[in-house]
Amino acid sequence: MRIAVLGAGYMGSAMASVAAMNGHDVRLWGTWLDDALVDAVEHDREHPRLRMKLDARIRPYRSNGLADALENAEMIVHAVSSDGAVAVMTKAKDHLPDVPILSVTKGFLPSASGKMDRIDVVLAEIAQKKLRFVHASGPAKAIEIARNVLTLMSYASADAEAARLTAKAMGAPHMRIGVSDDIAGAEICSAMKNAYATGLGLWDGFYGPDCHNARAACFTQAIVEMEKLVVAGGGRVESAHRAPGAGDLHVTAAAGRNRAFGERVGKGKAAKLVAAEMLASGELTEGYAAIASAWKWAAEHGVRDLPFLEAIHRVIWEDADVGPTLEKLTLSVQ
Amino acid sequence: MRIAVLGAGYMGSAMASVAAMNGHDVRLWGTWLDDALVDAVEHDREHPRLRMKLDARIRPYRSNGLADALENAEMIVHAVSSDGAVAVMTKAKDHLPDVPILSVTKGFLPSASGKMDRIDVVLAEIAQKKLRFVHASGPAKAIEIARNVLTLMSYASADAEAARLTAKAMGAPHMRIGVSDDIAGAEICSAMKNAYATGLGLWDGFYGPDCHNARAACFTQAIVEMEKLVVAGGGRVESAHRAPGAGDLHVTAAAGRNRAFGERVGKGKAAKLVAAEMLASGELTEGYAAIASAWKWAAEHGVRDLPFLEAIHRVIWEDADVGPTLEKLTLSVQ
Repeated sequence: MRIAVLGAGYMGSAMASVAAMNGHDVRLWGTWLDDALVDAVEHDREHPRLRMKLDARIRPYRSNGLADALENAEMIVHAVSSDGAVAVMTKAKDHLPDVPILSVTKGFLPSASGKMDRIDVVLAEIAQKKLRFVHASGPAKAIEIARNVLTLMSYASADAEAARLTAKAMGAPHMRIGVSDDIAGAEICSAMKNAYATGLGLWDGFYGPDCHNARAACFTQAIVEMEKLVVAGGGRVESAHRAPGAGDLHVTAAAGRNRAFGERVGKGKAAKLVAAEMLASGELTEGYAAIASAWKWAAEHGVRDLPFLEAIHRVIWEDADVGPTLEKLTLSVQ
Repeated sequence: MRIAVLGAGYMGSAMASVAAMNGHDVRLWGTWLDDALVDAVEHDREHPRLRMKLDARIRPYRSNGLADALENAEMIVHAVSSDGAVAVMTKAKDHLPDVPILSVTKGFLPSASGKMDRIDVVLAEIAQKKLRFVHASGPAKAIEIARNVLTLMSYASADAEAARLTAKAMGAPHMRIGVSDDIAGAEICSAMKNAYATGLGLWDGFYGPDCHNARAACFTQAIVEMEKLVVAGGGRVESAHRAPGAGDLHVTAAAGRNRAFGERVGKGKAAKLVAAEMLASGELTEGYAAIASAWKWAAEHGVRDLPFLEAIHRVIWEDADVGPTLEKLTLSVQ
């Protein structure tokens, strides 16, 4: 298959590697922020994020080559950050073939109405047409995907054929892919887990390494709250207990930039400052904006009784003191 | 209240500390294996396992003082290891007041019929009377309980009054306790999590630190399998998604002796040898025997399709090669 991968960061490059390994004709397009990454791939140097050389069969495209990258593609991998998704779709929409779009982008986006909505809904609004959107979720660090570590993902779509086709294209001995029709549940879990991973990181920073009980109590609380959020968004509660929910949160909370963001705030530094520092060092964390979006989405959907998300929002966006906020947290004890 | 704590190891001493902090009259009885621990408490030295001095109001009792420790107790905390539970109950049964027994003991035990059964069922058989048994589960490392880290536990009992009473006795600002009537689900999750934590540790040992995806895939798989096991044992599936299941597994898989046991086996050393070494160093892991018991229990209850538990059993008890066994593992992709 001819596969166009949009976004040449961690996840786009990792997905491109699997696709190339599977023998597909892979075009890796970098956004206007990815020039240094594409440059490295073009010159057969290590990918600066993944710190490995990509498969030589992957063809890199620079930001001005979007139409070329999309031409005759039979499948698209959407690996643009949530920040850039609207801008990229605006540029791509006139060149977009009617093929399955496998998206690894996490988060909510503001829709035309001003309310927060799922990425597939907002991107279809921008594209002004129905998209064959498949959301990929699950416990999947890009660097491990690229290095052939056993990985479980769930591909969810309202379009069963698109889910099946993308799963077939990307499945590999180390890539175990399930398909699901619960795109609402999967996207909501994916959007929420960065917020909750940041919250678990707050404990690490505030308390140090020996707070396993508190972290695990909040991990359980996050599952309870994701169940409520998934149901409010029209998804199925099971998604909160599988790869998109508990599974993905387990890996995001163990390692990754969102947890690290929380840890640095937990040590007492203002969230705004930590976010700026991480942006400057190229380790942009989606957790920062994700917490505000998640909180707004929950309010717009009338979901109350989310004490952990509320505590995270208060610490990150309202400068609440981390220690007292965490220790007074109400846990769902059932 | 007068509270007798049976077992002076990690968890008994931690529970005794909370009870003493709450103003109860606490008697801490050590088994015949706990002499060195009780000796340290008697002489106001640090508890050798918890590495801290216990509350001076806790009264230590040596193994020959079991009847005295139990006399007029209004509540019992059962913190004997699963290995010693039958022997202790055999000695205790004639001195046992008819009061709530809050048990932190994990695992299955062989019943009179020779089949594996829940600890509450087997101990009632030994005691030859109905016990007011409450099973305490949840993500709770003893050392953190003793050091006032925020901790979430679930107390489950068929006797609602016993659950309520023990929760009231042990609740504290850092000890958040929920009550449940699903003792079957809670005990099954508690028994299984040591086996699964060992399995997650296998990845750490075999692969090293950068296998988050594989670990999280297996964490998800463990939740799926715990659901099946809980249902087969007459429990409610929700217990697998809350403190007794996902929550407890999250902490056990992050830290603790069962995970460490798996890690050492994952590095290539025979399980039998690692278990002997850990026993010799006083770091006995319940995971070793728990895996055999869990596997036997599952077979006796006709639960099939447990690929992760099967893989763990094969590596630990059948000397299967760890790498190929893990990498060929069938994952439930739904």
